[in-house]
Amino acid sequence: MRDVAIVGAGTTKFGELWNDSLRDIGIQAGFAAIQDAKIESHDIDALYVGNMAAGRYIAQEHVAALITDYSGLSSRHISATRVEAACASGGVALHNAYLAVASGMYDTVVVGGAEKMTDATDAENTEILAASADAQWETFFGATFPALFAMMARAHMQEHGTTREQMAQVAVKNHAHGALNPNAQFQKEIDLDTVLNAGMVADPLGVFDCSPISDGGSALVLMPLEKALSHTKRPVIIRGSTIATDTLGLHARPKLTSMAATKVAGQRALTQAKKTIADIHLAELHDCFTIAELIALEDLGFVKAGEAGAAVAEGRFHLKGGQMPVNTSGGLKARGHPCGATGIAQVVEAVFQLQGRAGARQVKGATTALTHNVGGSGATVTVHVLEAT
Amino acid sequence: MRDVAIVGAGTTKFGELWNDSLRDIGIQAGFAAIQDAKIESHDIDALYVGNMAAGRYIAQEHVAALITDYSGLSSRHISATRVEAACASGGVALHNAYLAVASGMYDTVVVGGAEKMTDATDAENTEILAASADAQWETFFGATFPALFAMMARAHMQEHGTTREQMAQVAVKNHAHGALNPNAQFQKEIDLDTVLNAGMVADPLGVFDCSPISDGGSALVLMPLEKALSHTKRPVIIRGSTIATDTLGLHARPKLTSMAATKVAGQRALTQAKKTIADIHLAELHDCFTIAELIALEDLGFVKAGEAGAAVAEGRFHLKGGQMPVNTSGGLKARGHPCGATGIAQVVEAVFQLQGRAGARQVKGATTALTHNVGGSGATVTVHVLEAT
Repeated sequence: MRDVAIVGAGTTKFGELWNDSLRDIGIQAGFAAIQDAKIESHDIDALYVGNMAAGRYIAQEHVAALITDYSGLSSRHISATRVEAACASGGVALHNAYLAVASGMYDTVVVGGAEKMTDATDAENTEILAASADAQWETFFGATFPALFAMMARAHMQEHGTTREQMAQVAVKNHAHGALNPNAQFQKEIDLDTVLNAGMVADPLGVFDCSPISDGGSALVLMPLEKALSHTKRPVIIRGSTIATDTLGLHARPKLTSMAATKVAGQRALTQAKKTIADIHLAELHDCFTIAELIALEDLGFVKAGEAGAAVAEGRFHLKGGQMPVNTSGGLKARGHPCGATGIAQVVEAVFQLQGRAGARQVKGATTALTHNVGGSGATVTVHVLEAT
Repeated sequence: MRDVAIVGAGTTKFGELWNDSLRDIGIQAGFAAIQDAKIESHDIDALYVGNMAAGRYIAQEHVAALITDYSGLSSRHISATRVEAACASGGVALHNAYLAVASGMYDTVVVGGAEKMTDATDAENTEILAASADAQWETFFGATFPALFAMMARAHMQEHGTTREQMAQVAVKNHAHGALNPNAQFQKEIDLDTVLNAGMVADPLGVFDCSPISDGGSALVLMPLEKALSHTKRPVIIRGSTIATDTLGLHARPKLTSMAATKVAGQRALTQAKKTIADIHLAELHDCFTIAELIALEDLGFVKAGEAGAAVAEGRFHLKGGQMPVNTSGGLKARGHPCGATGIAQVVEAVFQLQGRAGARQVKGATTALTHNVGGSGATVTVHVLEAT
């Protein structure tokens, strides 16, 4: 396998992008990454696109061909692949783009993720998102994603004594980080009372325990490491790239307070990278709900099972004063969560950090980062370990 | 890059599978391939699934996790990826599974395609399929796939003098082949008058010029060639595997009588395989409409532009008496066209032929085959060149 590196990263602003369609968003993200990489469109050999549900959102499948066409790349008839893995579509797209370069078949690959969600009503969004759960055994009986994660939260509270206040601290932290990110959907700090007094979505998860509905796109340019080193001064090396799966339905798992796919994907990625969790300087974790960040912190081994709530409340994962900042971008909670884009957006943030250009969010001296992207309630998890050169 | 070989192939029957859901179909196809490969489920490192539109057909996204779960593979947390490229979803899945093995990251990969279409009404199917065209510039204005291919047919008739009778001969040939395939949706010969007198769908394409709405699934097991040779007596080597793209909309192309993506994907695959078109002994081509097979024959170089109609009518591509049989499986027309499965089903037929186990459809002495899978009206095309060992 060839070593693979990231030579460019770019993103749109996340939020309610009223003036931009899915194709606009995809192209803007791709162009940002291409400009950042200082390559021309004729350098590109293949495109990978992560997208969850354009078929249902805008009656448009064949999304990779769409982006290839509207970015002008179809004139060179490049290879293009769309992957879908619910909210892990971006991470799974990156894994496959990584394999495409590692294989030796393609030298310069653009991988992006995009989703256009805000044109749908809240009810439509709830239904479209629920299609990533088990349609036959969960959605049919009325399960929604807030409900599924609320069950995990209740189980975590029961098993480990985790409190609503501890979960709320995840939202407070990630909003504080998002306030420093000019591309975040919510660039505003919030306090604990705001989270605790917000309207209930699925008890114990209130509005501020949930990531928002978002439009947005992010993209990366990959090259073999050897070529990357001659092309740019500071490529970021993909040291580990893994996907792990679990049962689609939550009901089929032995426990609700942990995601086996996160444990496996994390361990495989660290092994591949020849690192331990202690080597990681910052992480972007999949906080689709506040409880999800706590579970990820425990499953990845940053803390022991049951200790994440207290650790977050103590400030261990804060940008200011924390030992290992988590979700410096604002996370899904504050940066926003356009599903197909999220797995790529996490890596864009890690690249900016490892290249020392994260501005007010910069983690000083960071050389190793981990990103963690979850599909559904944990049926697909991807983990990437990234290292500065 | 490691050489990659196919060590197992399997398929469900294609047709109206009233008793089987998408998950049933996917699992049956996968098990057939696994049994054929004589491997156990614990040998599998990764799964790739091609599926066009389960989100719209059955409100189920996250399709790779679904199949992983219901085949029991989630207990080992294997890597799983779903790809979507309209009716080329199967071929694009195979290309990425090929890269996954070629890269060196995965040794034993199952790649399958599945679609469950017959639970939708005809109107729903027309709308869901049309989502693979350009939603903003084609579908919005009422374009359907029969209409788009009818325009290609009219242009071909105008430019090359192709006749309705010549197009109809594609359907007659493929039904004759399908009659020999126990897994085909239509195992019945038809005559020229039946095609010509059938109800019109989109002038000049009648019902028998169109492939059917189908349920079905197909799967393959891939290994590095070296491992494959020690595992099985006669693996089939993937000598060429390519994807090429074109504009999503038909209106943006310089001509309607040729698909540039087929030309490019075909030439790239032959170059990769170090073959010429004269080396090919049989081909499975994407005959979603009869005109599509004629255009593919010309674009791939089996005949010159404008000569495919006469060549088919002369019997050059018939199993009985033809020089280079095309669509011995019955093609999309008679074998059936469950969109996500088609690109894999074509390769399953090629594997059976190259291993000498195609029964009544056997092409004697065939050692090299080509498969051609089209998404939309040609915005994505994949070509695979396969060789017997």
